[in-house]
Amino acid sequence: MTAANSDLRAGEQIADLPASSDASVYFLGRLRTPWSERSQCPRRGDAETGPLCRVELDPRWREALAGLHRLRHLEILYWMHLARRDLVMQNPKSRGELFGTFALRSPMRPNPISSSVVTLVSIEAEGLVVRGLDCIDGTPLIDIKPMHCPMWPEHQDAVGRL
Amino acid sequence: MTAANSDLRAGEQIADLPASSDASVYFLGRLRTPWSERSQCPRRGDAETGPLCRVELDPRWREALAGLHRLRHLEILYWMHLARRDLVMQNPKSRGELFGTFALRSPMRPNPISSSVVTLVSIEAEGLVVRGLDCIDGTPLIDIKPMHCPMWPEHQDAVGRL
Repeated sequence: MTAANSDLRAGEQIADLPASSDASVYFLGRLRTPWSERSQCPRRGDAETGPLCRVELDPRWREALAGLHRLRHLEILYWMHLARRDLVMQNPKSRGELFGTFALRSPMRPNPISSSVVTLVSIEAEGLVVRGLDCIDGTPLIDIKPMHCPMWPEHQDAVGRL
Repeated sequence: MTAANSDLRAGEQIADLPASSDASVYFLGRLRTPWSERSQCPRRGDAETGPLCRVELDPRWREALAGLHRLRHLEILYWMHLARRDLVMQNPKSRGELFGTFALRSPMRPNPISSSVVTLVSIEAEGLVVRGLDCIDGTPLIDIKPMHCPMWPEHQDAVGRL
């Protein structure tokens, strides 16, 4: 993605991206959310009180949902397709201070992969209904996993050995 | 990756992978662990008692570690470069039961991205020392983020608004 350097905020720094990439990603479907522009998105999804969103899965992958009904919380990985990838130092509006990219959960990162913990509300023919997403409508889906939070013992028990 | 179908376990099913991919990933460095073969790896890393491992970051990205010293737990994303990508139904050895790929945290998935929660032990010139990885030595690194576990309130406070 080409990004205009005039968009950089004070103190932000970029790296030269590598000349070639190393692996390739398939988009598995799309996330359907109430937000059509980035400025409307919440800062972070809320898996308890956030609005209902849909995870639309391409037909090729739907069989891979088998067994998901046993789970209550999922980790959804998605590709932040609008984010620039070359920032190493960022100046988040909300902080007033510079941070390295890896000290932030900003969508702008060398591999613009975001992860959200969502609550699974229902499983439908074309995918899932969940709460907890925070991305714009149409964001590409790249993975669905059982959530694993080692610091939350109740959850460890719920997921068992999945 | 070409994978022999003779390796499939009972009941396992595969999908035809799409003819083309949709996005590309940069490998940012390598994970250095004590395990040189998959059979030696623990089933899941332990961020408290696991062995010390290193996250080696390419020089291009090292500046992006600034501010990480404020964090104790990180989410590390890595590319499971040895895993086949076409499995939709899996028969995990440990379960004796078939599951859809998205109901498992198996490395075999359309986009073989794993995430581990690690404890940050120290920051060094070439990267990080952490506990909690579970992958083989040399696994490609694709992201480092502050951990976010919405169900663990103590952690929410620690990360603040990062």
